[in-house]
Amino acid sequence: MSNVLNHNNYLKIIDKYQISVGDELIIDIGNIIYQGILIPTSEYGDKQNIVIKLKSGYNVGIDINKIKSIKKTGVISKLKFSKSKNYVANNSLPRICVIGTGGTIASRVDYRTGAVKPALSAHDLYSLIPELSKIAQIDCFPICNVYSEHIEMKHWKIIANSIMEKIDEKYDGAVVTHGTDTMGYTSAALSFAFQNCPIPIIIVGSQRSPDRPSSDAMLNLIGATKIISEKKLSGVYVAMHSNMSNHQIVIHQGTSVRKNHTSRRDAFTSINREPIAYIEKNKISYTNINEPNSQKFNFSSKFDEKVHLLKFHPSSNPKILDFLVKQNYKGVIIEGTGLGHVSSNWYNSIKNAVNSGVIIGITSQCIAGRVSLNVYDTGRDLLSLGVIPLEDIVPETALAKLMWVLGNYKNIDEAKKIMLTNLAGEFSIRSISTIGKY
Amino acid sequence: MSNVLNHNNYLKIIDKYQISVGDELIIDIGNIIYQGILIPTSEYGDKQNIVIKLKSGYNVGIDINKIKSIKKTGVISKLKFSKSKNYVANNSLPRICVIGTGGTIASRVDYRTGAVKPALSAHDLYSLIPELSKIAQIDCFPICNVYSEHIEMKHWKIIANSIMEKIDEKYDGAVVTHGTDTMGYTSAALSFAFQNCPIPIIIVGSQRSPDRPSSDAMLNLIGATKIISEKKLSGVYVAMHSNMSNHQIVIHQGTSVRKNHTSRRDAFTSINREPIAYIEKNKISYTNINEPNSQKFNFSSKFDEKVHLLKFHPSSNPKILDFLVKQNYKGVIIEGTGLGHVSSNWYNSIKNAVNSGVIIGITSQCIAGRVSLNVYDTGRDLLSLGVIPLEDIVPETALAKLMWVLGNYKNIDEAKKIMLTNLAGEFSIRSISTIGKY
Repeated sequence: MSNVLNHNNYLKIIDKYQISVGDELIIDIGNIIYQGILIPTSEYGDKQNIVIKLKSGYNVGIDINKIKSIKKTGVISKLKFSKSKNYVANNSLPRICVIGTGGTIASRVDYRTGAVKPALSAHDLYSLIPELSKIAQIDCFPICNVYSEHIEMKHWKIIANSIMEKIDEKYDGAVVTHGTDTMGYTSAALSFAFQNCPIPIIIVGSQRSPDRPSSDAMLNLIGATKIISEKKLSGVYVAMHSNMSNHQIVIHQGTSVRKNHTSRRDAFTSINREPIAYIEKNKISYTNINEPNSQKFNFSSKFDEKVHLLKFHPSSNPKILDFLVKQNYKGVIIEGTGLGHVSSNWYNSIKNAVNSGVIIGITSQCIAGRVSLNVYDTGRDLLSLGVIPLEDIVPETALAKLMWVLGNYKNIDEAKKIMLTNLAGEFSIRSISTIGKY
Repeated sequence: MSNVLNHNNYLKIIDKYQISVGDELIIDIGNIIYQGILIPTSEYGDKQNIVIKLKSGYNVGIDINKIKSIKKTGVISKLKFSKSKNYVANNSLPRICVIGTGGTIASRVDYRTGAVKPALSAHDLYSLIPELSKIAQIDCFPICNVYSEHIEMKHWKIIANSIMEKIDEKYDGAVVTHGTDTMGYTSAALSFAFQNCPIPIIIVGSQRSPDRPSSDAMLNLIGATKIISEKKLSGVYVAMHSNMSNHQIVIHQGTSVRKNHTSRRDAFTSINREPIAYIEKNKISYTNINEPNSQKFNFSSKFDEKVHLLKFHPSSNPKILDFLVKQNYKGVIIEGTGLGHVSSNWYNSIKNAVNSGVIIGITSQCIAGRVSLNVYDTGRDLLSLGVIPLEDIVPETALAKLMWVLGNYKNIDEAKKIMLTNLAGEFSIRSISTIGKY
């Protein structure tokens, strides 16, 4: 496999057929004929292929060497947010802030540049989804524009601090638009940052970009604003499609939601519990409403980056844990097997880590179910080494929690205790017990 | 949290109440009264608790300091395999070898020692499950006795070589009894070890030990032997419960099965495809039968241990990848986000790894769905760095495959090509394509 980038081939084909980004093309590679719009290839390098956006919305890379002919059939005009109408929301409606972080939701795709253009104002958003002007008074705050695979802890802080400003400004709720890849991690992080939050914070993404007929963006956004406007919920949630149809939105608790499919619109599911609510047409059915919380609102956007999520596997090397200890990591979440086990080969490294003051939390790579270290002696061995069995928490949520806990508690014993305290619904409503019952 | 083990407390309580392992006890801790059988605590250390097996089959650890009183109500007699009957299987029935590796299946729990006692002979197994003598002529070969969290690559080799002996001895099929924790990894490893296998190899586990009324052990074993005796299948499969009821067994392809719940009997599911068959009472319904394979049987039990499965997460440290390269790792499977992405912070480390000759395979932590690195420029960046997008393979299967491939192909380019070749149904029947369609 060659790493040499052949820019020459790319430029040659562009020159030969006099084509440019945004052109509608018919490309013949002999056995297949592709029809679509030329979009930019990666900045980073791959110039062996040209990339076109098919009518279905998918992008496909075509090997330049295989191209027999290219026919240019038209040019797509630059998409703009509509300026034609004036949307004015009634000022008796709830006030919702939309915090934009990137991803394809609440945006339009510009075919010329391939760039995703975020909605910069309420007017932009109303022009995309006119229904919204009847649900709420919306203000848009695009605070960053990154794909969610690039979202880091520093973004969590920026997002959390922006929302906190809006809470101070008495908004009735916040919608956070976010790429779907790491949405579950961010929703967990925000759940710990905003404990007993006075308003609802709903994170929304879309699995299909708004330029595609099958996009889930509009309905997800409408669902999020609708449930906020009912003023029955508070706390951090995720709103996404509940099934393959384009009718029902489901509201997941922020600490128990996970992306479980690479591409389906209903990729997100609640783990180890029912979702909070379903929204279909104008009806919201609550399955599991969180009672208005009388406990004190606790906000902190502090996190500690020295935490790692480690997946155990057969013949995995415990030296990785030693390495993290040497790198001054303060916490490690292990995804063990089954009820939360690891091979006895790992015991010495775990013991050393715990003795060095590293907090080791145990979750399961099964994802669903509860860890229990009391059923088998392997588990009891682990307990005696000082690991913390993290009940039925989602592994990614355990990571975000340990990052938050270590950002806010400097005393290790206190931090360990907090790890077993239900701060934001991360443990299911079943009482925490040492018995491994399902 | 103290690491000092208080053996004194443990011995004191044993002496005070004159109790020993195997005794039936009623233990009062004030607010709760436990009733069960005293079983041994971990060898490793934890002597703050005594452990009893409840009637439900679950073990529970009881803090010695909380015990108010213990009443001894009886002693459980040592369980034995029945000797009372003589089971003789008809010699016209198919010949099946049962390869025992450990776990709780095909075994009896000895309450005295707490040890799991594997069935050592066909007679033992027939005495546990008399139906088996009407399905097949069974020979038992207990080759090791380990919990599956301790199963390593060296065990894969032992298991594979033992099965190969039995194939040479003309058995009609092999049943491998295995703990459930890492059963999916082993089934993937055996699938690559036995390509185009002439006989069926069915791996069977149980989520509840055979001493519990809710055990799934018997039905799983019966299902495995039944489908072998039909002689319609060849290849490597897993047989487990298909739902919460105790009626239906499902046969999963060995490369596409995963444990997705810590404790449910139906914890195993097929990922990205239908299971191969369902067995209910005496009826086997095939949904997706693998046609008898005319390709050449290819056996190799060689694996390379220098392969790691790495889960990417927000703010994860790419230095871990650098560390693996320094440790002379030859392959790394990355569980990226969504369609197979990682943060651009990782690009340099990935580039260095690839340039050092490390094979980097990309899978998704979503588990279900297909990776596609052509949809977003982040993905195209990764492709240009030389990573291999591993289609819709299960991440754990990708690990076992790369271990097998590097054990058998020394040329990197060839190994990379083989990683994208469908060796054992690890890619779903949909054709391999660069388009990220679901």
